[in-house]
Amino acid sequence: MKVNTAEQKNYEHRNWVKMINSLSGFKSLNLLGSLNSKDHHNLSIISSCTHLGASPALVGIVLRPHSKKSPRHSFLNIKDQGCFTLNHVNEQIYKQAHQTSARYEKSVSEFEQCGLTPEFLDNFKAPFVKESNIKMALSVVEIIELKQNLTNFIIAKIENFYFPDNCLKSDGYIDLEQAGSLCGSSLDGYHKTQRLARLSYAKTNLKISEL
Amino acid sequence: MKVNTAEQKNYEHRNWVKMINSLSGFKSLNLLGSLNSKDHHNLSIISSCTHLGASPALVGIVLRPHSKKSPRHSFLNIKDQGCFTLNHVNEQIYKQAHQTSARYEKSVSEFEQCGLTPEFLDNFKAPFVKESNIKMALSVVEIIELKQNLTNFIIAKIENFYFPDNCLKSDGYIDLEQAGSLCGSSLDGYHKTQRLARLSYAKTNLKISEL
Repeated sequence: MKVNTAEQKNYEHRNWVKMINSLSGFKSLNLLGSLNSKDHHNLSIISSCTHLGASPALVGIVLRPHSKKSPRHSFLNIKDQGCFTLNHVNEQIYKQAHQTSARYEKSVSEFEQCGLTPEFLDNFKAPFVKESNIKMALSVVEIIELKQNLTNFIIAKIENFYFPDNCLKSDGYIDLEQAGSLCGSSLDGYHKTQRLARLSYAKTNLKISEL
Repeated sequence: MKVNTAEQKNYEHRNWVKMINSLSGFKSLNLLGSLNSKDHHNLSIISSCTHLGASPALVGIVLRPHSKKSPRHSFLNIKDQGCFTLNHVNEQIYKQAHQTSARYEKSVSEFEQCGLTPEFLDNFKAPFVKESNIKMALSVVEIIELKQNLTNFIIAKIENFYFPDNCLKSDGYIDLEQAGSLCGSSLDGYHKTQRLARLSYAKTNLKISEL
């Protein structure tokens, strides 16, 4: 089937959004922990965390624009406080993680409402998710507003990260599958994974092999 | 286990890169098809395609900087020609897809070298991958060089997209699992997925249910 994006008018808006959201492929799933100036905690699921570089260790996340009609507490907190956490979603908590996307009032903690436990590590200001197995403490480096749709692209530096000891392989690879991390599809699909292989570094004159 | 990124010097560079690349979570896997002014085709695997918006339909991709020492043909082609394709990696072609990451000469077509078939659809200039099931034709909207590491964040508009008829659900969701799309981990992990559930739209006063 072929769709030209100029045909958008032929689709119901909600269906269009689900369809376009499917196209990029599978998505990382993280819970973003933040706090505001009154120390209220906020937690929201995001599916846009992307590796930007290892040295310095940078990731990018995409957050929808803030407006009075559609308040985005995580975005305001990140902008104000300059720090946040990311916590991988796993099979034990994916329903609670999904529930954080409901539009709770600013003063309400999604931790409480959704049955997740805030955790504080190494004096980092923003809350982590205790039930998550892979967690990062991040500081904001730059916020770029994309002029095409006013979405915010946030570049953040990983300060500390945490993972189960038994997930680290001798070559530095962290086994996300062993940590139970999930991936997402479109707006509402949750998937566990099954590794087919790790493949050797590709060279032009050498056949790749499974590690 | 806890790691502070200031400890990078204690790690071998290659291991550090694999470790940091693991942290964002599972990654989308696409083959990027492009061509240069001499109509040479180029194909490279990328794991950074991220949804940016549905209306207009935008995705972002991250490409490492181009240099004489590390030429990035895809980046140069995209910049020069203003268009490219993205093609989901599936179980039948993931080894060929991985092989495209080897450093072939500029005049060499990774299609030929890796055993994949260029396909031309609807007069779009850049080549698609025939063996892929979900494909997009894209035009470049903006290239933002990230000053932190000179990586390029490319914002692109989806013009056309293609997928198997039987993967489209009545609400617009495209079933990536049915299309055989894979996800990746770190630099070299390839995974198939198993859906746990699709979850209903979250509201503050309603229990979520499985769709």
